[in-house]
Order: sequence, then C-alpha cells, then structure tokens
Amino acid sequence: MSLDSVVFATDPKHPANLICTLCRQFFHNNWCTGTGGGISIKHPETGHYFIAPSGVQKEQMDPEDLFVMDSKTGEYLRVPTNLKPSACTPLFVACYQHRNAGAIIHTHSQNAVLSSLIFDQEFKIANIEQIKAIPSGKVDADTGKPLALQFYDTLTIPIIENMPHEDLLIDSLLETFEKYPNTCAVIVRRHGIFVWGPTIDKAKVYNEAIDYLMELAVKMHQLGIPPDCAIGEEKKFIQRFE
Amino acid sequence: MSLDSVVFATDPKHPANLICTLCRQFFHNNWCTGTGGGISIKHPETGHYFIAPSGVQKEQMDPEDLFVMDSKTGEYLRVPTNLKPSACTPLFVACYQHRNAGAIIHTHSQNAVLSSLIFDQEFKIANIEQIKAIPSGKVDADTGKPLALQFYDTLTIPIIENMPHEDLLIDSLLETFEKYPNTCAVIVRRHGIFVWGPTIDKAKVYNEAIDYLMELAVKMHQLGIPPDCAIGEEKKFIQRFE
Amino acid sequence: MSLDSVVFATDPKHPANLICTLCRQFFHNNWCTGTGGGISIKHPETGHYFIAPSGVQKEQMDPEDLFVMDSKTGEYLRVPTNLKPSACTPLFVACYQHRNAGAIIHTHSQNAVLSSLIFDQEFKIANIEQIKAIPSGKVDADTGKPLALQFYDTLTIPIIENMPHEDLLIDSLLETFEKYPNTCAVIVRRHGIFVWGPTIDKAKVYNEAIDYLMELAVKMHQLGIPPDCAIGEEKKFIQRFE
Amino acid sequence: MSLDSVVFATDPKHPANLICTLCRQFFHNNWCTGTGGGISIKHPETGHYFIAPSGVQKEQMDPEDLFVMDSKTGEYLRVPTNLKPSACTPLFVACYQHRNAGAIIHTHSQNAVLSSLIFDQEFKIANIEQIKAIPSGKVDADTGKPLALQFYDTLTIPIIENMPHEDLLIDSLLETFEKYPNTCAVIVRRHGIFVWGPTIDKAKVYNEAIDYLMELAVKMHQLGIPPDCAIGEEKKFIQRFE
Repeated sequence: MSLDSVVFATDPKHPANLICTLCRQFFHNNWCTGTGGGISIKHPETGHYFIAPSGVQKEQMDPEDLFVMDSKTGEYLRVPTNLKPSACTPLFVACYQHRNAGAIIHTHSQNAVLSSLIFDQEFKIANIEQIKAIPSGKVDADTGKPLALQFYDTLTIPIIENMPHEDLLIDSLLETFEKYPNTCAVIVRRHGIFVWGPTIDKAKVYNEAIDYLMELAVKMHQLGIPPDCAIGEEKKFIQRFE
Repeated sequence: MSLDSVVFATDPKHPANLICTLCRQFFHNNWCTGTGGGISIKHPETGHYFIAPSGVQKEQMDPEDLFVMDSKTGEYLRVPTNLKPSACTPLFVACYQHRNAGAIIHTHSQNAVLSSLIFDQEFKIANIEQIKAIPSGKVDADTGKPLALQFYDTLTIPIIENMPHEDLLIDSLLETFEKYPNTCAVIVRRHGIFVWGPTIDKAKVYNEAIDYLMELAVKMHQLGIPPDCAIGEEKKFIQRFE
Repeated sequence: MSLDSVVFATDPKHPANLICTLCRQFFHNNWCTGTGGGISIKHPETGHYFIAPSGVQKEQMDPEDLFVMDSKTGEYLRVPTNLKPSACTPLFVACYQHRNAGAIIHTHSQNAVLSSLIFDQEFKIANIEQIKAIPSGKVDADTGKPLALQFYDTLTIPIIENMPHEDLLIDSLLETFEKYPNTCAVIVRRHGIFVWGPTIDKAKVYNEAIDYLMELAVKMHQLGIPPDCAIGEEKKFIQRFE
Repeated sequence: MSLDSVVFATDPKHPANLICTLCRQFFHNNWCTGTGGGISIKHPETGHYFIAPSGVQKEQMDPEDLFVMDSKTGEYLRVPTNLKPSACTPLFVACYQHRNAGAIIHTHSQNAVLSSLIFDQEFKIANIEQIKAIPSGKVDADTGKPLALQFYDTLTIPIIENMPHEDLLIDSLLETFEKYPNTCAVIVRRHGIFVWGPTIDKAKVYNEAIDYLMELAVKMHQLGIPPDCAIGEEKKFIQRFE
C-alpha cells in the first residue's frame, strides 16, 4: 500500500478532504489568512491524526499536503515533500490525548485577539442564547449524555499568554486542562484560539458559536456593556433612547 | 406513498428544497452559525409544515433532514432518523395558527441581540426608506390589499424576554400577538428574532429589511443618533463638519 | 417579432442579462436587500431603457422580469405579467434625458444613509486617492476627453431630502442637475443614492468608488477626522501613539 | 510566434492567469473596487513583467488585457488594444530592480488608508502572532534562509505622502528602499499600500498578513490601545470588566 493512499479518498467527509474544505471556508472568515491558523482531525476508524502543514496558504491546500501521524506511536505515516509539520502539532496531540478530542481547530480570529486584550485571565459572557451551543462538560445523570451550557450560564474561556514558539504553549495548555477541566477552548493572548470537540462536526460548531460570542462581546464592550453583566443590568451602562 | 416522498421534489421552490437553500444563504449572513436559528415553511397546497430540525449545521442540511407536520392534526408525517424536532416548533405553529403565517424565519442575528440591549421594551426606527418594505398590518380600503409602512412612519417591533427553553416563549409570543396585532416580527432579548409573513418570499423580504434596519439602528446609536428621531433632529446629536 | 425577444439574448453584456448579474452582485453588498434599490440600462444600439421592476427580490430577477421602454415615445415595449414598474422610473428617465446617462444605479447602501445623517447639504471628502475614479465633469481642452477628479480635489455630492414617494423626488433631482451640473450622483437623505454614467461600466465604477468613499468618510467621522480636512490636518483631530 | 501567445496559457499558476484570479479575489476584499489597485508578476522563467492595465474593472480582467514588458530592455512585448499601462508601472519596475521582487501587489485597502491617518511616519504594531508571517529581512547565519519577524518584534512599515500622479511616488519609494532596507511594504498616505515579495505566493501572504495587522491596529486604536504597546500595557488603556 502506498503511503499516499491514506490521503486520497472520494468521501468528502474523509479527514483529508474535510480539512481542505474547512480551511477554504475558514479563510473567507479571516480566520487563517496569511498562512495563519491550523486544523487537525483524527480519523474515526484508523485513529490516525491528519494535520495541516506549517506555513501554507490554507485556502489552497490539497489532501496530499497533509501530514498523517500514527496516534499510537506518534510517528509520521506520511510527510509531504517540501513541507514542514505544523508547530501546533504537540498542542493538537495534547488535546487528543488529554481531552479525548476528535478534532482541533486553531484560528487567528481577530475576535479572539481583541477579546484577549479586553479581558484579563478569562473571557466571560453570560445570558446569551448562543451560549447553549457550548458543552458544559457535565453529563446527564440519567442518560449519560453530555449537557450543554444553559441560557442563564456564564461561558468562561481561559486566556493563556503567548510564547515565541507555538510548541512552548504546551505547559500552559496542560495547566489549563487541569484548572478548567470542562473547557473546550483556550484563547491565546494576542494570537488566536484553540477549540476542540469529540468530532470535527462538534469542534466546528463550538468554534463558530465561540467566535460569534467573542464578536458579540467586543461589540458589547464598544457599547459600554460588560459582556457578562446580569440580565437588565445593561440598562445601567447604556444610553437609552426611550 | 412513501413518507419520504414528501421531502423529495425537483422544484427548487418546494419548501423542502427552499429551506435548505435559504439556510445556506442565512449561514453566510452569520444568522444561523453554530446550529443557531431555524425556519419553517407551510406547503401552499398541502398545508403541511416543513421544519428544520434542532441542533444541526444549518448550511449542510438536506431535504431528508426536515420534519413534516400535518397542520390539521399536529402529528408528524415525517421524522428524520436520529434528529430532534426544533424547540421552536410550538412557536412556529402559533405563528401559523394565530397570524395566518405561511413561513417563519428565526435567526440569531447579532443586530437583533445588540438592538435588544440598546432598546428597552420596543425596537423603534423612523423616517428611513427601507421601512417601506415592512407591512403596516392595515389594508387598502378600496382594494383590500395589504398596505406597507410609509417613509414617515415609525417601525415598532416588540422585544420579549428570553427563557431557558424556546418553547417557554410561547406565552410571551401569544401576548405579543394580542398587544401588537400588526407586527410581523418579535425580537427575543439576548437571543435573536422571529419574522413571519404570508409566504416565504415575503417573510424573507421582511427579515432582510428588518435586519438592515436593526443594523442601521445600532450604527446610528454608535454615532449618538436616536434611531427614531425626527428628520433633521439628528443635527442636534451629531458633530457636523460643515 | 415577439415582444419577449427584446429581453432574451445570449450576450452576457446585453442589458437584460447584465441587470440581473449586477443585481445579484449588489445584493451581496447589502445594497438592495429587502427588494430595495433599482437599476436601469439604456441599450447602446436601440436606445431602449431596460428597467428592473418594483418590489422584487433583486438577487432572483430573470431577464423576463424587466420592463422595457421606448426612449423616444416613453411607452413600454414590454410589461412583465404581475409586476409593477419601478417608482424610480421617472428619475431614471430624467437622468437619461438631462444628463445623457447610459445607465443609472440606485442603492439603499447604509454608507449613503449614514453619510446623509453625518453631513448636511453636501457630502464632501478630499485628498483621497480613490477620488480619482470620479469624473470632474470637465473635459480636456486638447483631446475633448472627460477629465477625472484629482487627488487634491474635493468630491462633493449633493444631498436631497427624501419624499414619501420616489417619483416626488423628481423636482429636487432636476434642481440638483441645475445646481451641480458636474455631479454623477445624488444622495437621498435617510434613503440611499442614485449614481449615473455614460455607460453601465462607468456607472458601476462610479458607484463602487463613491460607496468606498462614503464608507471611508463614516469611518473617518468615527475616528474624529473630518473627511474633507486638509492633508496633515488629521493630526489635530486624532490621538496619535507616537 | 504571436505576441498574444505570451498571455495564453493553460496553467492556472501562469502569471497571466494568476493575475486575473487574484484580482477577482482582491475585488471581493474591497481592495480594488472602482478600478483601484494593481498587480504585477514577474514570470519565473522568462523574467517578463506581467502588469494589470490602468482603469479597468479588476474583477473582470482577462489574460489578454495584460501588458507584458521585457525586463531587460524595459520595452513592451505586448500592449493590449485600447488599454493604458498602469501608472504604477515605474513603481513596480523599481521593486523588481531594487528589491529583487518577484511580484508586487498594490491595493486601496481602507485599512491602509485609515492606518495612514492614525499613524504619522511609520505604521507600528508589536507582540501579535500574525507578525510572524512577515519577513525580517535578515537571513539565518547557518542556513542562509530568510528569517521571519518573531512574536516579540515590532513590525514597522514606512508611510510616504501621496502625490498627484502615481509615477511621482518613485522618488519617495527609492528613498524608502534606502531608509528601510528590510521592509516588504510601503503605505501611501490617503491612498493604499504596495507589498512585494520574492514570489507571488509570498507577496500574497505578506499582503494578507499586513492587511490583517492594519485592520487589527485600527480596531485597537478604536478601543484606545496603542497597537505597538508592550504586552500587558493594554491594561492601562482599557476599561476592564473584571
């Protein structure tokens, strides 16, 4: 079997194809322009990690540009010619191993960067319907199914300091896993965000919902409203016209 | 006749196809990212209610993902495997039954969320051309045709408080129908908006025009201008350069 | 010859096709959502006026939805079934007859609406490169060719008050033609903008450049800089970091 | 050999095709609407300069609209009928000759224009991850490979004053080459930006990353944060909610 065969599949949902499709979509959201950002998906059957390479134009990637790693040995099953592995690779592996992730999305979203300037140690937003798209980390006592945050909850996302190289973020990331066992995301100050989930579909939804909430938080800040203020408390902060 | 046959049609204007097309379009407007939002269309001939399911990626829906309800019995004619009905379903049914709606659009538009923070009990904007796309709720005495708001009119949209679950909004929605018999929309604070019309074409136009007006109202607020101020009154609020 | 034949052409540059293509593009710019806006192109050979109808979804128009008017008699050569002529029609005709226009674009651009709130009688912006895309109304003494505004010039666009019905704008429009013989655009307060040119290609370019400049003027206003200030004068208005 | 043959190629990466593809993409970024902006790519093998013409709708260009110049003689190998050479041509040639550029991108990005109003002689932003996409101008002592800016570095881009005609910018551009030997970009006040790189792929990446950073700098300014402040210093400038 050619090593190349692991990245050539006809199924558009195969990780090798899906990574390319999503990167094109993320590029148009200004999430991974200028070769920024990254993404990794674990193959649900083989368990292989598919990882976008370093320093490429994310909207122009083809399946043959992807690195593929054996999840058990940590060795590369496939190394594309002339490409370098993503500096995020150890971070992605940590999410797979310590959070049981099925996929990780890393963006340079300006909403994340601005949120990291507005907030101190934690991003917080409360009492917004979109929060209900984010998992609480708890499970239903009866069914065992994961529970989502509720409308009256506060979404808290830890913010860690950026480092000169992405692999140096690993210690902060592991500490965050300890301190915030229920979070599905970490904001890196002046850098961007990492979001993970048990499947790529869920990671994509979490990332979209969190980006929506960070965008809203920046707009609320600009209107003078604390994003985590109580319902009705916004009246104290805003000049009303009525 | 297979139950599946109700959602497989070649006509792009068939509700099962149109719901999918519109959700893709709405996704790119940031109206239903992160599985947010919803939509329902009543089939003009059979009267069946076609309803997008709960918790799916709205830009990736296929006709076979839709729920179909018999409008007379309220029973489902079609329940997609592994999908849950939208929590908005009772709200959609209320719009069909009490407002004679032909379609309902529900978005998590940030313009709606921000408007619900800026305004208190009612969203108001006046003296803007785009208002003329919204129905006044009155009919022409001679022709019996519905009349639109005019340029000098004020568009008023009621704002209701959000609840922990969408189906709990039903009481507030029914009260709003009583208190604002002419409105074609309700803003849900910190959540989004519901917009309805006699046909999906009209509901789509109303939703677009209202979103435009909410976006404009937020921008006017940021410039210090009350969105419902009289013509020329903006001069009192803005620093002019002339 | 069937009357329908005037709108069925294979050339994508034929007015009947181009109007539909441009409306789809303008829709995605938020210039004609909610059935707002309008457009008309004069056929360069027959002189017929092709005009988008009233109250339709602009991104969904087909060539058979267009009205066609004989430029000499003012009579309709083609009236689509079940559609109403645009209320802008007399304004478009005035631009054809009094300004020798070849095409007119009317949008509900929020940049135009916001500019009409920020400025009083005239929109003014100066010393911006993009101004050079706008015609000065003067011609080169040697070649007879039309001259564009230069970088150091001030672009001035008159602002007229909106009226309850679009056809009532005709008197203000004609007055503007007298008072501003060189303008290729009129802003209608709290409504939008009309832009014309000798060809649809030029009208499209003028509209794009003016919208860019209105967007920039609103942003400059938000930064506290008068859009028509002299070069270097912005230093007096802005907090610098150096 | 027909002169036309130099612009007709099947390879989508051929300069004649790539210029057209990129201009369509840049148009949708609002970087070259209203015929603004420009681009030139040097053919990697023949060394010919391919240059977009003056005054055309950038999203509608075809390969046959391009000018082609012999890099050794400076003479045109191809002059499209009825089109004028870009006024940027001498600036592009200067970048090829004095900076060893392989491609130059010129946009009217509003982020560049606004940055030129906010900043005085130099655009500066520091301590943002996206800076790492920009070359430092230095090379690795061991490998001889070009080095990128690091996270803790400050990106400095010189700002020159605009002139009535683009070719008059040549003296300022050449001075900038002397004074800022490591820069890959020059902002032209109230006009836009020029960005170059050793290949079109690199120039595109630099332009995207710089535009991202200029957009971020304008947003930071609006939040009251100096874009080049030290890490943690933003706390002095922003109202925190914690």
